[in-house]
Amino acid sequence: MSDNRYIVGVDLGGTSINVGVVPYEGGKVLGMRSMPTDLDHGAKFVVDRMVEMIRGCMRDAAREADIPDDGFIGVGLGSPGPLDRKTGTVIETPNLGWRNFPLRDLISNSIGLPAELDNDANCATIGEWWMGAAQGIRTLVGVTLGTGIGGGIVLDGKVFHGVADVAGEVGHMTIDSTGRKCKCGNYGCLEAYASGPAIAARAIEGLETGEPSILPSLVEGDLSRLTAETVYEAIIAGDLYAKEVMHETAKFLGVGLANLINILNPEMVVISGGVTRAGEHLFEPLRAQIRRRAFRHAEENCRIVSSTLGGMAGVIGAAYMFRVERDGAD
Amino acid sequence: MSDNRYIVGVDLGGTSINVGVVPYEGGKVLGMRSMPTDLDHGAKFVVDRMVEMIRGCMRDAAREADIPDDGFIGVGLGSPGPLDRKTGTVIETPNLGWRNFPLRDLISNSIGLPAELDNDANCATIGEWWMGAAQGIRTLVGVTLGTGIGGGIVLDGKVFHGVADVAGEVGHMTIDSTGRKCKCGNYGCLEAYASGPAIAARAIEGLETGEPSILPSLVEGDLSRLTAETVYEAIIAGDLYAKEVMHETAKFLGVGLANLINILNPEMVVISGGVTRAGEHLFEPLRAQIRRRAFRHAEENCRIVSSTLGGMAGVIGAAYMFRVERDGAD
Repeated sequence: MSDNRYIVGVDLGGTSINVGVVPYEGGKVLGMRSMPTDLDHGAKFVVDRMVEMIRGCMRDAAREADIPDDGFIGVGLGSPGPLDRKTGTVIETPNLGWRNFPLRDLISNSIGLPAELDNDANCATIGEWWMGAAQGIRTLVGVTLGTGIGGGIVLDGKVFHGVADVAGEVGHMTIDSTGRKCKCGNYGCLEAYASGPAIAARAIEGLETGEPSILPSLVEGDLSRLTAETVYEAIIAGDLYAKEVMHETAKFLGVGLANLINILNPEMVVISGGVTRAGEHLFEPLRAQIRRRAFRHAEENCRIVSSTLGGMAGVIGAAYMFRVERDGAD
Repeated sequence: MSDNRYIVGVDLGGTSINVGVVPYEGGKVLGMRSMPTDLDHGAKFVVDRMVEMIRGCMRDAAREADIPDDGFIGVGLGSPGPLDRKTGTVIETPNLGWRNFPLRDLISNSIGLPAELDNDANCATIGEWWMGAAQGIRTLVGVTLGTGIGGGIVLDGKVFHGVADVAGEVGHMTIDSTGRKCKCGNYGCLEAYASGPAIAARAIEGLETGEPSILPSLVEGDLSRLTAETVYEAIIAGDLYAKEVMHETAKFLGVGLANLINILNPEMVVISGGVTRAGEHLFEPLRAQIRRRAFRHAEENCRIVSSTLGGMAGVIGAAYMFRVERDGAD
């Protein structure tokens, strides 16, 4: 007898919102959709958009898989943190600009289904553990590189939350205590070097000193339009300067990952986000830096891999998180 | 009926060896003794000294508490790591200079009792959890500041080892990727700023530029004899420059602890080692730096405290670790 229960997974990011319907026992994601977050329109706009996307996604999934109305058992929400899982509240989120925002109940009340809230990077990491690159891994760290840098720790198939749901916040790890200013107000956070906006900012700094590159031509000379995506495009086109920017990114990221590897000694680190499009231009110098900085015995026992679920990881993991919170894990 | 079983706890450090006999159910440590490690005499000398200390300690404890010969059930050994608990081997230890050294079996064979080996900072941390500052704490990080900087992670009363027994190696966390050279070969490790030798080195650098201080007089003008202990002495005597050196130390340590707090979100961080003698000259700027660098929600939920077991923590924790390995925890 096949299980006919479905969970809506929602991945709220600083740049985009992804929504999909995930079968309770895993499998193909249905009704998947993605839209920009458009944060500057305000919190109400974002919540309305999420609700509309969830409704549309459920409609499409129901049609595709003949799901009855009572087949949907709930909504798993992944959001940038820190947040309070018990109250379903986003507490303080530099990348959203929200404070003490009751996201879970707003969504739950609008949709008429129970909902659970967890950190987006926790969701992406448990998603990779459930259906992606990290199946069967006992000690896992996930790092998501996007507008911000998030992290998740999964031990024996469970997200490790720490005492106040903050565990895994790797983006604001200091790697250079007197270094680049971060938008959190501190200096030298990993996020100030290796997030999408930081990659773009470092690329622009070099271009302004006259580094030869095709990058300006990709944004029609308007450097304010240059993003990390532009850098990945230029790498694929063979641009040497863009490769150098990625090489530097990998070195910074390697410092952060070596710290995580020395502290947590995981079996695997899964990296996700647009930056993985740089492929070996990222992974080769990244692994070299980790070899240099981490304890050999830890580094030799840790695989550094790319997400296999990509943008689906957060959606899949948010659904799994709802299932664990409501029913306990298998 | 009282339990009449006893475990020998051994804490091997880069500077000194501590040995004591610990009752199986906890309580007063018997026959406690401490001697310098004298690493420069070679590994055989150190092992012989450990064996001699263990024998003497068992003799004293037996006399003091009427312990029969078969009352001693084993030896718990804490050593700087990384190490392999399964084979009882010290794998690579910058602070001892040993490689692939079968410490556990050498001690076990000489004493004629089963032995278990774990990281010294893991032992100190579980010791504080068992009988010290961290009783009842569910998510705990211990940081030991001495010749090196070690760390231990205790989750729900169990040491978290990671996949290859390296977890908790916080001393070689990079806090300044282009910073001070560390003896591990890298740049900017926490240990290069806040270990005992690093505190002394930073103090000497300032004195050489002419900072006024009583420090030189405490070492009869011979700066090569200046140690971190000298700095603590000078602080207690009210020396302003020594206080400034400690203030800087606290700032560096705060960067490292803020990273740990963001990553692990512990309920408590226990700090041990001679540096805690500086009292509020350490803790006040340390807490300020953590407030500045860690997520508020994580920092507000984390107590930063000083070890209450001091030099006994490693011995007590090594004994507890033996008990857990052999019999399972209660």
